[in-house]
Amino acid sequence: MIAAATRHGGVVALAGGIGAARFLRGLVQVVPDDALTVIVNTGDDLRLYGLHVSPDLDTITYTLGGGVHPDQGWGRADERHTVATELAERYGVPGWFTLGDRDLATHLVRTGMLADGATLSQATERIAAAWGLRLRLLPMTDDPVATMIDTTDGRTLHFQRWWVGERATPEVTAVRLDGAAAARPAPGVLDAIGDAAVVVLCPSNPVVSIGTILAVPGIREALVDRPVVGVSPIVGGRVVRGMADRLLPAVGADVSAAAVAGLYRDLLDGWVMDNADRGQVAAVAALGVATRVTDTIMATPEVSAALARTVLDLAAEVGRR
Amino acid sequence: MIAAATRHGGVVALAGGIGAARFLRGLVQVVPDDALTVIVNTGDDLRLYGLHVSPDLDTITYTLGGGVHPDQGWGRADERHTVATELAERYGVPGWFTLGDRDLATHLVRTGMLADGATLSQATERIAAAWGLRLRLLPMTDDPVATMIDTTDGRTLHFQRWWVGERATPEVTAVRLDGAAAARPAPGVLDAIGDAAVVVLCPSNPVVSIGTILAVPGIREALVDRPVVGVSPIVGGRVVRGMADRLLPAVGADVSAAAVAGLYRDLLDGWVMDNADRGQVAAVAALGVATRVTDTIMATPEVSAALARTVLDLAAEVGRR
Repeated sequence: MIAAATRHGGVVALAGGIGAARFLRGLVQVVPDDALTVIVNTGDDLRLYGLHVSPDLDTITYTLGGGVHPDQGWGRADERHTVATELAERYGVPGWFTLGDRDLATHLVRTGMLADGATLSQATERIAAAWGLRLRLLPMTDDPVATMIDTTDGRTLHFQRWWVGERATPEVTAVRLDGAAAARPAPGVLDAIGDAAVVVLCPSNPVVSIGTILAVPGIREALVDRPVVGVSPIVGGRVVRGMADRLLPAVGADVSAAAVAGLYRDLLDGWVMDNADRGQVAAVAALGVATRVTDTIMATPEVSAALARTVLDLAAEVGRR
Repeated sequence: MIAAATRHGGVVALAGGIGAARFLRGLVQVVPDDALTVIVNTGDDLRLYGLHVSPDLDTITYTLGGGVHPDQGWGRADERHTVATELAERYGVPGWFTLGDRDLATHLVRTGMLADGATLSQATERIAAAWGLRLRLLPMTDDPVATMIDTTDGRTLHFQRWWVGERATPEVTAVRLDGAAAARPAPGVLDAIGDAAVVVLCPSNPVVSIGTILAVPGIREALVDRPVVGVSPIVGGRVVRGMADRLLPAVGADVSAAAVAGLYRDLLDGWVMDNADRGQVAAVAALGVATRVTDTIMATPEVSAALARTVLDLAAEVGRR
């Protein structure tokens, strides 16, 4: 939270997967590429058959690069599954995590670079460039962080095992971010935040996307004196996408737009909520956070752009306070 | 070399890639699966995009499992190249080493197992089982060995870079087997040789296939008191497949059936040559090696089987001496 925005630098967005990608699809229409830095959650990253898979980075890259599967919102359009079919049918490998053939090329490029000693930031930069992205796309950290889910049946599952492999069915008792305490922000992350005229919290999962980014030491602290405006991922008490409704209780929060704003109260200046949550404006205002209410269901790129404009308008307003 | 074969155990074959695979296709017709152990060169193995690729193991597995590309003699039949196309077109990665989609599944299974702490032997066993192989397929070692090629233009290239990437064009000054001196035979290798009624040297490259296997400490020594029969990979002074003609000069040997036999003289009891090399029988006999001359161009599985029978006949003969 800020008293006044003293510098007018770029826009920094903290981002998870599909919801963030759809929002960023709008943000790039209203912010010049060279003024935009996106810092992406990597707590969901996983090793699969020795490959380094970065689901959120890929979802954003494919979406902004025009290659995402339009209905799924993740993975590649016009995808094929020869490799996965062979893995399943020849080798009996359970295909709990879909790896499309085209998608695999991305994982191979990334894994190859990491095997050759490159950082995740460097691999991300190359992949983003190959997709023609001109904004700056940064992993939150180059260090390993793994979001782990403790369940009521006594197991601890990697986030993707829980979410994709078990469809978020097991009841969650705790979310742990292995490695987060020792992780360092990726090169450029703190500088981008320090220079930002506004930091946007994309409509992503507050626990395992935005929460994970904020758990990297230094990032949350850097946000406190920046203008921070978020978009609620909760609409009418329900998640638009994903599984925040399964995770918010584990961190003691209600599944509501106001409760999510409350998770960010130490750093949040503005909160954009859906028209459906008009009734929560007072609760958010009580946190000292400015609000806007608009259509947040990003069914089209036009809605995404309008939402991005609303966010920047609110940022300008809170930046002047 | 032996004075007399005192034990009657199984058949052990030392094998490289395509030539070996075509020979083994015949050997499995005349030796019961449970009596056959194949020890495979892994000096050609490479890391590609972080994946562990074992070309010789795969060529043999696909050939014996009925999945090899019939014309190429390597890779998969009915192969697709969506991943490689994406790597080239999207990411500009030079496709010097073909990775087909179906083939990739094998590399993923292997790499995943290695990443989880399995040995190459264990990965090989699982992959062979998935292909229905009932013989025992063993890598020569679970330790890393890399065949490196020194060229006259002053470079040192991994074998696959030289062979596949540069089509064996650069002149060779030396072949080095990085890691071989410290490598240990894979579990089961020395026991299989010790129990063998006959050890067969498949018609593989004497420098970078059989030579590499023999360079693993303990293997060459174990062969000395076993009946060893080889099949010449040289026919009429030319290689049938591969690049032995480019490598034999680097180890000071002529490109001839007799010269290759000479490379094995300390351990060889019998040598099967092509009809075209009838004129070299005397030279091989002068090494104290028994000979047979037959058709070694394995155009059909029937020729492979006939050749395998000839090898076993010769082995029986030398075993009785």
